[in-house]
Formats: sequence, structure tokens, C-alpha cells
Amino acid sequence: MDKSTLRRIDNTLKHLTKVTSDIENIHPHLNETPNLKTLKSILDGEYHFDRDRLKELFEESSTFDEIFLNKSIHTDEHREQTLKACKEIIQLQIVKLSDMEKNPKKFLNWFETISLCDPSVSLKFAVQYNLWGGTILFLGTKKHHERYLDGIENGSILGVFGLTELGHGSNVNGLETTATYDEANQEFIINSPTWNSQKYWPGNISRHGQMATVFARLILRGVDKGIHAFVVPIRGEKSNQYPYGKLCDGVEVRDISLKDAYNGIDNGGLLLKNVRIPRENMLDRFSQVDAQGQYHSNIPPNRHFAMTMSVFFIGRACLSLNSLAFTKAGLSIAVNYAKNRHQFGATTKSKQELPIIAYSTTHRRLIPYIARTYALDMAHKTIADLIPTYPKETIHSYTSGFKAITSWAAVEALQSCREVMGGQGFRLCNRVSMLRNHADLVTTGEGDNTVLTQQVAKYLLGLYHQVVKGSKKSVEHLSFKGELAYINNLTAQPPTPNTNANQLSNISYHQWLLEKREFLLIKELHSRLYGRHDDELIEPNTERWFTVWNQSLPLCIRITKANVDRLTQSFFLKKIVEQSGSNLVDTATLTMLKNLCRLDSLVQIQKDFGFFVNTGLMSGESKWIQLEDEITHLSRDISQHASVLTQAFSIPNKFNPLQNSIE
Amino acid sequence: MDKSTLRRIDNTLKHLTKVTSDIENIHPHLNETPNLKTLKSILDGEYHFDRDRLKELFEESSTFDEIFLNKSIHTDEHREQTLKACKEIIQLQIVKLSDMEKNPKKFLNWFETISLCDPSVSLKFAVQYNLWGGTILFLGTKKHHERYLDGIENGSILGVFGLTELGHGSNVNGLETTATYDEANQEFIINSPTWNSQKYWPGNISRHGQMATVFARLILRGVDKGIHAFVVPIRGEKSNQYPYGKLCDGVEVRDISLKDAYNGIDNGGLLLKNVRIPRENMLDRFSQVDAQGQYHSNIPPNRHFAMTMSVFFIGRACLSLNSLAFTKAGLSIAVNYAKNRHQFGATTKSKQELPIIAYSTTHRRLIPYIARTYALDMAHKTIADLIPTYPKETIHSYTSGFKAITSWAAVEALQSCREVMGGQGFRLCNRVSMLRNHADLVTTGEGDNTVLTQQVAKYLLGLYHQVVKGSKKSVEHLSFKGELAYINNLTAQPPTPNTNANQLSNISYHQWLLEKREFLLIKELHSRLYGRHDDELIEPNTERWFTVWNQSLPLCIRITKANVDRLTQSFFLKKIVEQSGSNLVDTATLTMLKNLCRLDSLVQIQKDFGFFVNTGLMSGESKWIQLEDEITHLSRDISQHASVLTQAFSIPNKFNPLQNSIE
Repeated sequence: MDKSTLRRIDNTLKHLTKVTSDIENIHPHLNETPNLKTLKSILDGEYHFDRDRLKELFEESSTFDEIFLNKSIHTDEHREQTLKACKEIIQLQIVKLSDMEKNPKKFLNWFETISLCDPSVSLKFAVQYNLWGGTILFLGTKKHHERYLDGIENGSILGVFGLTELGHGSNVNGLETTATYDEANQEFIINSPTWNSQKYWPGNISRHGQMATVFARLILRGVDKGIHAFVVPIRGEKSNQYPYGKLCDGVEVRDISLKDAYNGIDNGGLLLKNVRIPRENMLDRFSQVDAQGQYHSNIPPNRHFAMTMSVFFIGRACLSLNSLAFTKAGLSIAVNYAKNRHQFGATTKSKQELPIIAYSTTHRRLIPYIARTYALDMAHKTIADLIPTYPKETIHSYTSGFKAITSWAAVEALQSCREVMGGQGFRLCNRVSMLRNHADLVTTGEGDNTVLTQQVAKYLLGLYHQVVKGSKKSVEHLSFKGELAYINNLTAQPPTPNTNANQLSNISYHQWLLEKREFLLIKELHSRLYGRHDDELIEPNTERWFTVWNQSLPLCIRITKANVDRLTQSFFLKKIVEQSGSNLVDTATLTMLKNLCRLDSLVQIQKDFGFFVNTGLMSGESKWIQLEDEITHLSRDISQHASVLTQAFSIPNKFNPLQNSIE
Repeated sequence: MDKSTLRRIDNTLKHLTKVTSDIENIHPHLNETPNLKTLKSILDGEYHFDRDRLKELFEESSTFDEIFLNKSIHTDEHREQTLKACKEIIQLQIVKLSDMEKNPKKFLNWFETISLCDPSVSLKFAVQYNLWGGTILFLGTKKHHERYLDGIENGSILGVFGLTELGHGSNVNGLETTATYDEANQEFIINSPTWNSQKYWPGNISRHGQMATVFARLILRGVDKGIHAFVVPIRGEKSNQYPYGKLCDGVEVRDISLKDAYNGIDNGGLLLKNVRIPRENMLDRFSQVDAQGQYHSNIPPNRHFAMTMSVFFIGRACLSLNSLAFTKAGLSIAVNYAKNRHQFGATTKSKQELPIIAYSTTHRRLIPYIARTYALDMAHKTIADLIPTYPKETIHSYTSGFKAITSWAAVEALQSCREVMGGQGFRLCNRVSMLRNHADLVTTGEGDNTVLTQQVAKYLLGLYHQVVKGSKKSVEHLSFKGELAYINNLTAQPPTPNTNANQLSNISYHQWLLEKREFLLIKELHSRLYGRHDDELIEPNTERWFTVWNQSLPLCIRITKANVDRLTQSFFLKKIVEQSGSNLVDTATLTMLKNLCRLDSLVQIQKDFGFFVNTGLMSGESKWIQLEDEITHLSRDISQHASVLTQAFSIPNKFNPLQNSIE
């Protein structure tokens, strides 16, 4: 990272850590109703017209009716409907493929909105645009762009992202598929040498895909040059007999059958038996093979694969928003249910039954997830803002960490919505269990969350080590930069709240706790791998290193959670400050946003309460019960406005059952 | 509770709390392989022949093939197959309906084994035997027994358990359905007065059920005598046109359509429009209506409903075992996957990829759940032992608490199995996501877990209050009985481990922590509702009481978790001691069991670490990391034997995919 980039990031982050004092004094009472229109406009963001056009289409076109929730349909029927839905969305011409690079904010906004209808539709776009399109756009050159991009964008060339194999998922560096150059014919011969090397899982394989980007080991004159990407036609011209084209010679596909979600996607396995493709089908942005079979690349071999993979952060951000959109829909449905469903009364004499939203258990089962959803929404918006200017490795770490934490949070939230709704949450037509199952896939799709947490931890560890290595100073006297600059300002004692204020509700206190935790966890991981005094370095890539690293993996998950929690609070606060400066937002709405931020921090702090107490960051008799009560009371206060908060998610009626009654 | 009962329970519990010292000295190393046969025999228990016969049937009969996992089938097809499977199981004549009362252990063992095949089959039995059969058996008298029990047992009279209504689930006391006595004709007129009063959710409604037990408000000469149960025919004679009988006059049914699980069950809604039934169709064990319409009952009106409901604990225990069986299957499948799936290597130079079971994240994602499964299995076995002699309210509390914690643990474990398996965990044919969705239903079926935790908390609070009320002594000088007798022996300081032993691995220390936690939580709840000094009693059933109680509901969940964790450890230890006294069990197997118990306790303690530290029960610098590492290391050590541990669950091959390879 060059110095000017670092300085720019430092400044952004300094701004982030400074903001809390400005909003600490907002009136803390929650009796006034926040403004629905304002909340909706904040959530919809600057591309709200795109959202409106899509939602209009959803409501008007019967293609977006979710038939599969009401009867057992054959997967082929579901897949055709999914494709039809994609084509109707394409006709709106809202985004261009190039927006992934040039206007990621618009693209992400569009993708999030699509996630509101049958989730298979958005995933079909993830396959077609992000992955198949993304490989052509990011790894190809002009000749590929000219040949394919239009067809990809308008849906006339459907394609496959052939990366993972049956035997290799997370460790894609171990792929077995080969691309052997044949000088005589100027062709590559693409081959799946084993059953385990079949391209496995990608959508568009078993039914719709005409082309595939196949990642394979490039073999030049017997030498393995590592993983490269190639465009391979898998189906020929369309005909009456073969509406999606007959399979090309040497191409074998299989369907991987029913799944727990996304059945509108034709996932499959793809075996290639010495399929020949012309030399120009190699995607040659980072490296090239000339006619004579000479290899050229500007990128060092050990960085080549990482470089190739680094362009796909946009897909990860999309899936993250996918799970966030499911959560918004699920919470809207569950809040409707909780308002309509009556149960028991305040006293056994009172004939009047209470809606279950009056119970503290319902508050606790819904409101913290609403808070988390607002917080993560604002965080995702902030990341979208940062993508164009921030360095790739930072964005890679952000999108990896946020995908992991957001999808895990989505499964947890939707499980809770399901349980709040009892049996009704179980009927497919009420959508919530269906959404939970889809969010679940996101936890391992586009990178297994557990593996992604290792990427985040390594990134943070690297930044930390850069500053600490070789220095004999204690950490307090070192100067951290960029992402870790917050460490420089970390005080030994927590900030003192205003007189009479409850420390537990103090946003600056939360921030201090979240920063302290992340710092202490990184320090712990660092001391394991580099020794307490930077003098017991374990040589990387040795068996001993592996043992220590392997035993530290649970710590990587903690670090990622800590990192994302800290960033989420900062990003949320940044958005609140922006709003508070705009004069368009009333105090009741700002107060609500601030309290959502406060509740989210408190809940995350409670989840790791043991750490905070044991490290001395929190203390005081019966703190556990104070924390429990603070969350219960804050959830209760916010619950009065649960409807407004979820209405602001503006889920289309078609996808928001139980608005009036429960049948 | 009479004195002799209390004394008996005291003695059992005293035995339970004494046992740890006996096994603390078992050799702690985990290198030797535990004996598969021994583990299997402990898990299979005394009715292992029943298990074997059922498993043989599953393997041999194609009726038990899970077609719905491989293709989208119409629910009618699924429901017919489910019924056929039930009839094949009935033909084995393993259990009698009366075993629910006379030999619950045999019945529960049978039910757990059935839970291994398509979960719809076991749930169909829960409907037919536990609920429809249970009402006749427990609420009916001789005339009902003679008329129905044989037909229920042999499956010729299929029936419905008509308790919950669309508008009333957990609060069944608010049911609207009426049963008005018509003296002139000596008939009851059963009526659903509103759309919301339709009997809603019960299986066997929409397709197979011929009779229903309908819970309705008994109206005698205009006076509402509360909820009573009645047998109502809903379908007539079977014919070619109506293979399950034509709907009777005044009976309307609907199907509630696709669900996220248990689609083999024909759940529905049932509306009764002034359906007339003879007087003898009232289930009259607890109360009777004579020909003249006079009401007779030996039970006080305010206890009548609770008495009626108290007989259904067996169904709750069955569902609890349902979710435990799913967990066993899911863990077996996931361990197979983790052994077969290779990923990355110890060093980038090593070509040899490691099976993912070698990674600490995999250990942490599977092994603690294996430990919890053993612990809960032993606990359920112990409860089955206690059912015949323990008082009903104790068993009600046990089955409620264990159903809640076991099903929540099942969802968590199966979610983790799903994630370990990546995309493969998502394919229905691999069963894991399917099992997760079924376990999920158990969290709200047969009593919403969240509501059940209130029952447990009230039970414990009641026992506590009995001793504390009116006494001016401090708690330390009071003598608790029965369930809470452990409080009498609670020391202020934790037991000291043997020299050099690590306190964290000390079973007596775990026990002390788990007991202290439960005690402190009950004390906290008590002081909220009764004042710190038993002098600020809030009058029950007032608005103020409701406010305090409502804000304390999250505490009830904590109390239940604490209670079940304590009991689980005690019950597991009891079983280990029984085994260690039998001379049939080798040291390696005993060592494994003890370490599973230890790991389970540690994991539960970690989940509530903040409480333990903040209350001063645990202390010491970096305890959080010691605890994390202790769990990581113990999980790693046990992981060497993960295969043996899951093989001992002996899941039939048909339901245990991925045993050899992953396709």
C-alpha cells in the first residue's frame, strides 16, 4: 500500500472514530415515532428509482409468483420460471455488466433488490453476471469483451463459472483439470482427468449454460504453469430438439438433484473429455500464451492465482446482500405475525389476549435482529462507497468478513423469526423457513465462512506485524496505520460518560470495548505465531507453523467477528452523522437510529461478555444482569416502533404475507 | 409431594452429586481407542433387540426409501408412503399403546429408533399413538378403551388430536370450540364458532383421519365448565370412491399445504359445524356429565385443565428423542464427509492434502456436538428410568426442559454439520439439511420451547419459594429438598483438584459451576418476584406482577438452560458410574465417556462464561483463552475417535450416505 493511500484511509478512519461524541447527546427517549418515509429513503439510498422499478415488476408480473411455495413442482418448471424472471429483469436494462467495476454501488443496490423475490432469481444473476460475466470482464481482454459481454448482459449467452471441482472447493489451488497447449493446432485441450475433477456445483451446467469459464492447470510443454481460465463452449446451436443446444463433443453433464434451497438453479457436474478450444479462448488479462507456446506474464507466479481470484469480491458482496435482504423480508413477516397473533393476557382475569409482540421474549427474539439489520445495511452501504478508492486487499477483507458475519447473522435471525411464528413459520407459503434455508447456503457459498475468517485474520495479522516486527518498543509506543490506526488512540480506561448517564448505554464506551477486543485478539494471535517478543518467530510453511496455525483457527473466527463488529458500529455511526448533518432527518428518527446502533453493539458485547469481563474491560457486580436488563428494556422500547422499522424495508406485498391476518 | 417421595428423590440426587469423586481418577489420556461394541451396547440399551428388528425392516423394505429426497413428489404420494411405512412398523408388534404408561422406556426406545427413517414416519406415530391414542388411553375410560384402543394400535382407526386452534396455540386454555350438551337427545353439539377456532395444524386431518379427539369448552345449561375432550367421528365408512371415508356432515377440512419438513404428514384445518355426538363420547376419566346434564368431577376446577394436559409428557419426550436421533444421523453423515473430504496440506510444499477432520475448525464444529449428543442420550435414558417413580410435576419439568434444550441443540448441531459439508450438506440426498429442518420444527412443536422454559422456571421457583417463604434465615441456613437439595451442599469455594491437575478439566469443578449458576439464577428470579427479603411480594395475577414477570422471561430461558445443563451432567455421570461398576467396560471406553462429559460441560460453561466470571465463580488472567484452548485441545484429542463414536450411533446404511465417497 503506498503512502498516499494509507493517509487517505487514515483520514477516513479518524473521521469514523471521532464521530461518536457528536451524536452522544441526541435525546435518548424513544417515545416519538420515527418517520417512515425518512427511514425508507435512507434504506433505499440514492438508486431508489431502480428499486421502485424492480418492485413494480415483481408485483405486476406473474412470473414472480412463487409457485414452488404452494405446490411440489418439478425442478425443470422452477428453472424455466427462474430464467424467465431473469429475462424480464434484464429487459428493464437497469444495470450494465460494467457497473460491477464502474458503479458497484448501483450494481449492489440492484442485486439487493432482486434478492427480495424468489432467491433463485438473484442467484441466477450471480452465476450469469458476477461469475460467468465477471470472468470475461475481469480476466478477459478486448477480444473477449467484444465477443461475449453483450450476450452475457442481455441473457442470450448463458454461461457457467467452472472453478470448484468435486474434489476441490475451498482449496481451488489444488484443481486437477488441465489445459494442455497443442502448438501444432494452436489449441488448448481441456481435460478432466478424474471423476473428482469434474466441475461441480456451478449453476447453468445441467440445463441452460452454453459456455463455461473453466479454471484449469495450464500445461505448456509438460510444465504446469498453475491455474488459468479458459472459455469452453459446452452446448451448440439451439434447436427444437435441443432448446438450449446439444452438448458439445467430449462434454458430459449431470444434475446434482434436489437441494434445500435455490432449486430454481440448474446446478450440476461437468466433465470435459479432451475438449479442444482455440488459443484465443484463454482469458489473458494477467498472462498470455503466444502461438509458439511461450508463456508471458507480468505477475510473479506466486501472486498469480491470488490476483486472479481477487476480482471476485463483488460476488461476495452480492451474496452478503442476498442474505441481508432475506433477513429484511423475514423480519417484516415475523413482525406482522407478532402483531396479529394474540396469546394469553396480562392477568388470567383479563379476557383481552395480548399480541405476542407485547412479550419480552418476542422483543428479544426480533428487535436485536432488526437493529443488526439496520447496522449491517449501513455498513454495506459504506463499503459500497469505499470500493472505488480503497485498496483491493482491504476491500477483499471487508467483503470476506462481512459476508461471513452477515450470513451467519441471517441464519440466526431467520431461525428466530421461524420460532416466533410457531407452526406458521413452517408453512412454505409464509416464506420464513424458505428464506432461512437460502441464507444458510450463503454461509458456505462464495467462500466457506470459516475459511474466509482466516483471510480476514491473516490480513489483520499482516498489518499488525508490519508495524510490530523488529521493533523493541512496546505496542503502546508504536504507530499503526490504515485499518489499525484506531489502536493508536486506544486509552487504557474507558471514556467517562456524562454525569448521571448509564455507562452501558454509552456509544463511546461500546466503541472502546469493540476496539479493545479486536486489538487484544490480534495481539494474541500475533504472539502465538511470532512469539511474545517478536523473537520466537515460527518459520512459516513448516509443520510446526501449521500446528500452531491450525490450533489458532477458532481465534481467527473471533478476530473476524470482532473486526466486523467494530467496523459495523463505525460505519453505522458514519451514516448517522451524515444524516444528522443533512437537516432532512427529524430528531425522533435520528434517536431511533442511534438506539438501534446502541442495541446492536450491546447485543454483540453480550455475546462475548466473558471476554470483556475476563480481560478487565468490563467490571462491576451483577453486570451480567444489568446488561441483560438493558438489552431487554431497550428492545421493549424499540418494539413499539417495530412496524415502522420493518415497513421501511419496504418488502413488496407479494413477498410479505401475513400483513392483515393469519390463515 | 409427600414426604416419602421427597426422601426417595433426595436419595437419588444425593447419589448423583456424590459420584464425581469416584470417576475423577480415571486415566485421562485419550490415545487408546474406545470399544465400538461397548459404546453401541450402552447406546442401544436394554431393548436393543427392538432396535435391531426395526433397522432390519428399514434396510429390507423399499417403503423406507426416501423418494422425496431425490425427486419432487406430490405430497399425496409422500403421505401414502408414510402411512404404508407406519403399517409395516405396526406389523412388527414391538410396542403396545399401553407401554406409554406401563413401559415408557421401551416405548421411548422404539420411538427413537423410528426417528432414524424419514421423520414423517415417527411424527405419524406421534399423532396416532401419543396424541390420538394418548387421549383415549389417559383421558378416556373403559368404554373408550374397549372401543378404540385396538384399532388405534393396529392402525385401522386413524385419528386426530384436535387441541390447538388457528387462534390459540400455546394458550390452549383460550380455545373457542364449544361442546354444548343437549339433554333432550343426550348428545353434545360440537361447534367451531369462528374461522379462528378451526382445529389447526394436527396431522391426519386432511387425508387419513377417521376420528378426532376434540378439545372444547363444555357448556352445560349455558354455563362454561372449561376445556374437556370429546371423540368426534370426522370421516365415515371407507369406499372405493372415498378410500379414507367420506367427510361426515358438518365437518370441513382443509390442507395447510407445503411445509419446510414433515411433508409426509397430512396436516390441516378442521371446522366443525354443530356436529352431534352421543354423550358417551366425552372422555370422562377426570369428570363426567350424567344423562340429566349434571357435572361431576373429583378435581378442583382450577386444576382440571392442568391435570388434563399433564398426561402428555410422553409425547414431549418422544419429540425430544426425535431431534436427538436426527442429530445422531447428521453427525454420522458429517463425520463421514469430514474423513473423505481432503483440503489443503500442512505446508504448501506437501502434496498430500489433509482430510478436513484434521482441522481444528472441523473439530470445533463437530466434536462438541458429539459430546453433547452422548450427554443428552444418557440424560434421556435416565429420565426414562425415573418416569415410573418420580412425581408428575418433576417429570413434566424434566421433559419440558429437555425437549427445549435438546431440540435447540439439535438445530445448532445440524446447522454446523451442514456447514462442515459445504455444498454437499445442501443436497437433499445427503440428508443433513433435511434433518436440520425437521429438528427445527421440534423447537416449537409439542410446546414452544420459549413457553416451556417458563414452565420449568415456575416449577423451580415454586420449589425454592416453598423453603424460603416466611423464613428469616439466610439461604445458607435453609434446607432444600428434592430437586433443589444440591443447594444444601454448595460450598462457597470450588472443590480443589488433585495436585498438578488442571482445574478447568476437573469434573467436580464443572459440577460446582453448573450448580452454582442454577442456584444464583433461581435466587435472582425469586428476588424479582418476591422481593429481596420475602417482604415485597408482588401480588400474583396483577398488572404489576405481569410487568415484572414479562421482563423476567429471558431469565426463565437462562434458568432452564442452567437446570438442564446441571441435570445432563449428573445423569451422564450416573450412567458412567453404572458402567464403571459393571466390569464389562474397558478403561479406554470409560475414559472416552468421561472426557465427552468433560467436554460437554466445558462447552456449556464457555457459552455462559460471562456469567461465571462476573459472578466471581471463575477467575484468573487469560481464562478466556485457557478455556478456548482447553476445548480446542480436548476436541482434537477426541476427534481421533470420531468415527468410532458416530459408528456407535449405528445409523442404518440406508440413512447414512457418504460412508465411502462423496459424489
